Amino acid sequence: MENEIIQWIYEAASKIRTGLGDALKVDQKNGRTDLVTNVDKEVQDFIVKKINEYDPEALILGEENGQDQTPIDKGRVFVIDPIDGTLNFVMQQENFCIMIAVYEEGVGQLGFIYDVMRDELFWGGPKVGKVFFNKKEIDAPENTSLRAGLIGMNAALYRKNAFHAQEIGLESMGIRVLGCAGLDFIAILKGTQIGYISMLSPWDYAAGMIMMDQLGMVSYGANRQPLTYQGREFFVGATQAAMVEIQAFDQ
Amino acid sequence: MENEIIQWIYEAASKIRTGLGDALKVDQKNGRTDLVTNVDKEVQDFIVKKINEYDPEALILGEENGQDQTPIDKGRVFVIDPIDGTLNFVMQQENFCIMIAVYEEGVGQLGFIYDVMRDELFWGGPKVGKVFFNKKEIDAPENTSLRAGLIGMNAALYRKNAFHAQEIGLESMGIRVLGCAGLDFIAILKGTQIGYISMLSPWDYAAGMIMMDQLGMVSYGANRQPLTYQGREFFVGATQAAMVEIQAFDQ
Repeated sequence: MENEIIQWIYEAASKIRTGLGDALKVDQKNGRTDLVTNVDKEVQDFIVKKINEYDPEALILGEENGQDQTPIDKGRVFVIDPIDGTLNFVMQQENFCIMIAVYEEGVGQLGFIYDVMRDELFWGGPKVGKVFFNKKEIDAPENTSLRAGLIGMNAALYRKNAFHAQEIGLESMGIRVLGCAGLDFIAILKGTQIGYISMLSPWDYAAGMIMMDQLGMVSYGANRQPLTYQGREFFVGATQAAMVEIQAFDQ
Repeated sequence: MENEIIQWIYEAASKIRTGLGDALKVDQKNGRTDLVTNVDKEVQDFIVKKINEYDPEALILGEENGQDQTPIDKGRVFVIDPIDGTLNFVMQQENFCIMIAVYEEGVGQLGFIYDVMRDELFWGGPKVGKVFFNKKEIDAPENTSLRAGLIGMNAALYRKNAFHAQEIGLESMGIRVLGCAGLDFIAILKGTQIGYISMLSPWDYAAGMIMMDQLGMVSYGANRQPLTYQGREFFVGATQAAMVEIQAFDQ
């Protein structure tokens, strides 16, 4: 299954790169900074078509085309984000990702995050027992503490100091705001960030969380509860050492 | 002169890349998140040696080795930052730049910003009348408004809402925190950010400001005054359209 998914991602990325010079059709979703483009929809349609051909029984949980309420816990579910970081895609034509995750009976089996313009694919999970950067298996990052690492942040949480985001940031070596969850997860998998705090939907966190889990790192929703896969919610993922320090802020 | 400087930058970058696997000697400067490494010092020494061979009369204004108080306004002054984004260099082994600027009698003539790991060199200024991305001349970015673009931010200014940073960020399409002034200037030169607000030293802003100016964009220090080249100070640089909107916040 993983080889097919990687092939779909490369094909989708090729379509995106080829179309970069074309005029985008950009629409607003929930407010003027929440955008969707014709490319998001076309890439989602392309991946959905591939999934339907590969496994007609599979369900789809995705941002576009009204497939955002699919339950995660029954059968095989593909969780897809055709373009993660749409604002970067529109404004920068770089710093965006394609993300796909596969769940079976509610258990995350495979995650895929592809930084389209840098050609960096991270993929893996329990189904293969490993995580790969392109074709090379990666080791688990060091179990670095919050105080010794950089942490990715959602700008609004940081501005409002929601969930102690400012205090956590000050305890770290510094915050980064990248505008693309996939890039934050890639940094965590590389070991160049020790964690990420944001407000995310299932298609934003599924692939990254599966790979973090495979490498011994941990993720939670609000109140130290598991993520719910129900709409946009608080997300914190980190090394085990950093998570202890992060959770100490709400004690 | 520009060909020699480009050659020094490529040689320095090659040394940095070759040494990336080696153990770094990391020291703190002003606090635990303000770092300097043996590589910063070695690269500064290398560039200073090249400058001295090329023009023994030239002065140097640089972060390391006690050359941080050189006046900008007399003779030829090379402003150098051997590694801009030292924290990223230490923590990520990517997302850092080499920056060099050349002033003659106080006038910025040439700026160079090199993203070492992505092999992206931006350089130019009045001396050549153009700005280049690697070997290709670039056009001035569109004169995009604050409301239609992304803006780079220093995390501390944003957290404290200093200089209206939060209000400016909310008016924009979104903020980015990259931890490396050179990367923010590169984004502005590419047209993927409309501006940058930070606290910067001369070697952080000189090269970027010269190239922004060459392409018709504008930069100020505090109170809409010119930058002083005297220590760390408030910096705002933006497209002309965005600068009008940014400055309206302190009226």
